[in-house]
Amino acid sequence: MKRIVLVRHGESQWNKENRFTGWTNVDLSENGIQEALTAGKLLKDEGFAFDMAYTSYLKRAIKTLNNVLDSLDQDWIPVSKSWRLNEKHYGSLQGLNKSETAAKYGDEQVLLWRRSFDIAPNPLEAQDSNSPLQDARYKDVPVQYLPLTESLKDAIARVMPLWECEIFPQLKTNDNILVVAHGNSLRGIVKHLKNISDEDITGLNIPTAVPYVFEFNDNLELVKDYYLGDQDEIRKKQEAVAKQGKK
Amino acid sequence: MKRIVLVRHGESQWNKENRFTGWTNVDLSENGIQEALTAGKLLKDEGFAFDMAYTSYLKRAIKTLNNVLDSLDQDWIPVSKSWRLNEKHYGSLQGLNKSETAAKYGDEQVLLWRRSFDIAPNPLEAQDSNSPLQDARYKDVPVQYLPLTESLKDAIARVMPLWECEIFPQLKTNDNILVVAHGNSLRGIVKHLKNISDEDITGLNIPTAVPYVFEFNDNLELVKDYYLGDQDEIRKKQEAVAKQGKK
Repeated sequence: MKRIVLVRHGESQWNKENRFTGWTNVDLSENGIQEALTAGKLLKDEGFAFDMAYTSYLKRAIKTLNNVLDSLDQDWIPVSKSWRLNEKHYGSLQGLNKSETAAKYGDEQVLLWRRSFDIAPNPLEAQDSNSPLQDARYKDVPVQYLPLTESLKDAIARVMPLWECEIFPQLKTNDNILVVAHGNSLRGIVKHLKNISDEDITGLNIPTAVPYVFEFNDNLELVKDYYLGDQDEIRKKQEAVAKQGKK
Repeated sequence: MKRIVLVRHGESQWNKENRFTGWTNVDLSENGIQEALTAGKLLKDEGFAFDMAYTSYLKRAIKTLNNVLDSLDQDWIPVSKSWRLNEKHYGSLQGLNKSETAAKYGDEQVLLWRRSFDIAPNPLEAQDSNSPLQDARYKDVPVQYLPLTESLKDAIARVMPLWECEIFPQLKTNDNILVVAHGNSLRGIVKHLKNISDEDITGLNIPTAVPYVFEFNDNLELVKDYYLGDQDEIRKKQEAVAKQGKK
């Protein structure tokens, strides 16, 4: 049996403050670190031994991965980082409080920006100091690949080449792969794996720091997927994520 | 100007307890984490921007690297891990308290084991549960490469292929490389770079978590090397390391 496990990063400082984060490089909260350690312990108790791991360029995902691997005692495995696993870029909304934005533009507009498939928030200026074009970590990425805003559709479109060319093909020669990333980059992968429609994917809420296990047969066909851990707890976490965009 | 910066891992649990560690996978102490964060801050204040980093398969080095990169805000750079950067293997001494061992065998014998160039402690049994042959993390390494004990000479001999084939050649296309490893694996690199004799290398004490900077010209010739930070503080750290093997 071959497995890919997806983990959304633990709570960040801005999850706590209910602000649009996107590509802003916000740190984990103390609670987020604990969530990551717990996820690692769950995986360890179930006997998971990973061959390799993937994560984004953003520290809330990198630190979640580091803490998961620490708690698993598997911090020596190869780790590959890619900007393609970053969160959806929220354009000029980045940094704004979600409730304030909802009060100003209305729940419906915010829900559109957060959860429509193909509507992107207004873009950042390329010269904005928060633009990826001004950030050294993206200096090796072709400029035309770097977003100034993204719809979910856009975000998925830049995740998939990495999935298709690098992550998924590793299953040919490896049995257990870990991917630690973000709500929307992981949605792209789940949409692809489970063949979810453009309409339905916006209703899928991935809880923070819960291992989401995908099992494949030897032909690399998906045979089973499930969240690891207490199912009631997981449902509560999903509901909390769904509620974030309301005033 | 091109630079390679060497950092020895921060204080581990067993440094504190004064035990022979070698390939035993001991964690950092709280003090060791703080040392690593401080090293990162020093590097940040001096404007270091690394292109890539190397570390060992042992968690005290990996966590030192993670904390240095966190404090530098450069945790997105590529990291490559290799068993070749591991500490010298201390054979059957691993786990023993250094002072007790000195009381039993005498300061001189312990100093020989710790600091002679080519005398290795008695080996572990291949079947010993602590042997690298029984450890999943070394499953992809050819068995004949895995040590059951090592002299400093042996340890240097297995570090150098990685240095020659992977780390040093990266300077052709990269300007700043970070290597976080262990007292004896770093001694091997320093011996090579500074052309230190077999006799003199045993007297070289590398302090924990102090960035050791090597500058190269465009022909990749070494032009300068220095420790970053308060020089008095560094001398005290070196003396503390030198004293560890005495009863």
